Amino acid sequence: MARALRLARRARYSARPNPHVGCVLTRDGAVIGEGFTQPAGGDHAEIQALKAAGDARGATAYVSLEPCAHQGRTGPCADALLAAGVTRVVAATRDPNPQVAGEGLRRLAAAGVAVECGVLEREARREIAGFIARMERGRGRMRAKLAMSLDGRTAMASGESQWITGPAARADVQRLRARSCAVVTGVGTVLADDCSLTVRAAELGLPPEDIALATAHPPLRVVLDSGLRTPLAAKVLDASAPSLLCHAADTPVPQALAAAGTALCALPRDARGLDPHALAAVLAARHCNEILVECGPRLAGSLLRAGLLDELVIYTAPVLLGSSARPLLDLPLAHMADKVALQIEDLRQVGQDWRITAIPTAHS
Amino acid sequence: MARALRLARRARYSARPNPHVGCVLTRDGAVIGEGFTQPAGGDHAEIQALKAAGDARGATAYVSLEPCAHQGRTGPCADALLAAGVTRVVAATRDPNPQVAGEGLRRLAAAGVAVECGVLEREARREIAGFIARMERGRGRMRAKLAMSLDGRTAMASGESQWITGPAARADVQRLRARSCAVVTGVGTVLADDCSLTVRAAELGLPPEDIALATAHPPLRVVLDSGLRTPLAAKVLDASAPSLLCHAADTPVPQALAAAGTALCALPRDARGLDPHALAAVLAARHCNEILVECGPRLAGSLLRAGLLDELVIYTAPVLLGSSARPLLDLPLAHMADKVALQIEDLRQVGQDWRITAIPTAHS
Ligand SMILES: NC(=O)c1ccc[n+]([C@@H]2O[C@H](COP(=O)([O-])OP(=O)(O)OC[C@H]3O[C@@H](n4cnc5c(N)ncnc54)[C@H](OP(=O)(O)O)[C@@H]3O)[C@@H](O)[C@H]2O)c1
Ligand SMILES: NC(=O)c1ccc[n+]([C@@H]2O[C@H](COP(=O)([O-])OP(=O)(O)OC[C@H]3O[C@@H](n4cnc5c(N)ncnc54)[C@H](OP(=O)(O)O)[C@@H]3O)[C@@H](O)[C@H]2O)c1
Repeated sequence: MARALRLARRARYSARPNPHVGCVLTRDGAVIGEGFTQPAGGDHAEIQALKAAGDARGATAYVSLEPCAHQGRTGPCADALLAAGVTRVVAATRDPNPQVAGEGLRRLAAAGVAVECGVLEREARREIAGFIARMERGRGRMRAKLAMSLDGRTAMASGESQWITGPAARADVQRLRARSCAVVTGVGTVLADDCSLTVRAAELGLPPEDIALATAHPPLRVVLDSGLRTPLAAKVLDASAPSLLCHAADTPVPQALAAAGTALCALPRDARGLDPHALAAVLAARHCNEILVECGPRLAGSLLRAGLLDELVIYTAPVLLGSSARPLLDLPLAHMADKVALQIEDLRQVGQDWRITAIPTAHS
Repeated sequence: MARALRLARRARYSARPNPHVGCVLTRDGAVIGEGFTQPAGGDHAEIQALKAAGDARGATAYVSLEPCAHQGRTGPCADALLAAGVTRVVAATRDPNPQVAGEGLRRLAAAGVAVECGVLEREARREIAGFIARMERGRGRMRAKLAMSLDGRTAMASGESQWITGPAARADVQRLRARSCAVVTGVGTVLADDCSLTVRAAELGLPPEDIALATAHPPLRVVLDSGLRTPLAAKVLDASAPSLLCHAADTPVPQALAAAGTALCALPRDARGLDPHALAAVLAARHCNEILVECGPRLAGSLLRAGLLDELVIYTAPVLLGSSARPLLDLPLAHMADKVALQIEDLRQVGQDWRITAIPTAHS
């Protein structure tokens, strides 16, 4: 199963909107075939592994997710495993897709296949947490990336912020982008940094065999910009990847923007800009599993306050930017009792910086 | 030598103003005596070890610091080792005390003792870095303890700050206090928190045999208070430990304060309060090796800007206090180029919090 999970990870950049899955077929203790989810429309992991095996009669299939039982763009994998004569199926976790939800394993068991579920389940669910969130609660998983100094600052008062962190942290961010369905920012960041928010092959730091997978399907770049202040020439709107400019429904769209063919999306306003829940709904409708937010303190603060941030990935540089510099999040709290509790999931060194992965929990 | 260093650590709370040293005597591969520096006026580590051994003829002495050669409150240890018939001396590092500075080892070598120096030197020097600093540059080592949220905040705007970190971090601070010659704060912290800055046996989290050593000699509590705003009833002035109230030379001392017998020290002013260099000189004159600073962002910022902070120990709690809360350090910087580079010496979990030990380096 560990091997199936490793295979699944190879598909983390390319399987979307499908979950990335790995499959290993064994017989008499030997591996006879393996596979991972191919880009949408292509084979699922099980089909790849069956093709690789040729003859899979009497084999055991280890799959990081329950085989599907519904007719999607490809045939149901449960049926394919049956047809191939596989006699035992071990799944890491059930498919949260309501169209599957145990039906794949039930169908296999009903046909006399020995079935097990729950091996390395935690790891398997964490790997496809974005897909699971979208299936189970109707919207994907939102992760904010923030680069800060040790004293919690993300930019100088002037807006100057490049570069707080080093090249290893930036490569790490490239990989987060590559696995995301969408990368979201605010117009404040676009105006300050003219960021492109693209995935760049040379900066991924991935082995050559994974670079093609990681760059084939660039994430949608989303800008929240109530008043359409984003210049037409902004890099985030260039042709190198798809983008979506979200504006307030009451903001008239300038002729030039419309003429340039920019993809636009009108959203309702809230007190601080565009309604973040409306954004979440738009991204869910576009089947976004993992959503990366790379913005300044204003939008990040709004998303946190709206309860939409599932994860904070904070790259901390070993520097002090001082007390006039900008905060991590725009988050005015008055009392200790209002503090936001975090659960630290992981903390590790990335180049000269430290990456903290934290989950906001209920207000403590 | 590792054993000698472990012994030295047992004396870290009690040897001051002497350096804390450990000594192990061996003969034929067996330990025949060991010792560590006793509180000032008592035996040095070597004498303790010789007493424990009884007969030390032909022995090897492992000492975490070169044996002294000068007549202090006790006789020179080099002579005692010679007299006892020790035939080999291995020292971790030379004594930085200009009254010794190699003379101990020279005297031993001249008398025919086999002499070595430099074993585990880095560890040994780090352990007594405060003493070394005082000997080599004329003032002890200043360490600032700061408790912050993950977003770099040390108190709410109202001043509310108790407790950001958990009990394990607070016990760690107790041990830092216990090993310090002085604990320094600003009147801002005294007025906000009425802190006592004492070492409390029950909160040290030390084994029983070390508690007596750690509480026997409480550190001097120093308050920087230009205008003598500290109330007479402040805990930091109570009788539980010595204290020193530093004020501006031009501030008249109120009758009540003088009558209460409060220890006072007049210092020159600088633009932000009392001159921090004058404070450093006062503490050096009092033979302070390790100085712990436990103050708010104002004084901590001044000390950093004055180049007086040798180490930052930052306890980071997994919470967000938000953008209206107070900064880590009062440190207004305008450009990225002004940022203060830090070297992370250590980062580890302490209870639910994370302790970061960082050394400010030159402005990067
Ligand atoms: N260190 C880092 O990780 C990092 C990352 C990115 C940026 N930055 C720095 O952050 C600074 C920019 O900060 P910022 O806070 O202005 O940028 P931002 O958060 O990216 O953008 C804020 C803008 O987004 C728009 N917006 C739309 N809906 C919003 C909502 N619900 N809540 C909040 N904003 C919403 C608002 O403009 P409208 O009202 O016009 O829509 C708002 O002014 C720059 O200096 C940049 O260099 C740092
Ligand atoms: N999280 C933590 O680790 C921590 C630790 C301690 C305190 N705190 C919080 O910090 C807040 C107090 O902050 P603060 O900055 O006011 O306290 P502070 O730094 O302890 O004290 C500042 C005061 O010290 C005096 N001072 C004397 N010489 C100075 C110099 N050279 N530079 C700066 N100040 C000098 C000044 O008053 P005069 O001009 O009157 O002399 C100044 O107002 C409280 O809310 C407290 O709870 C947090």
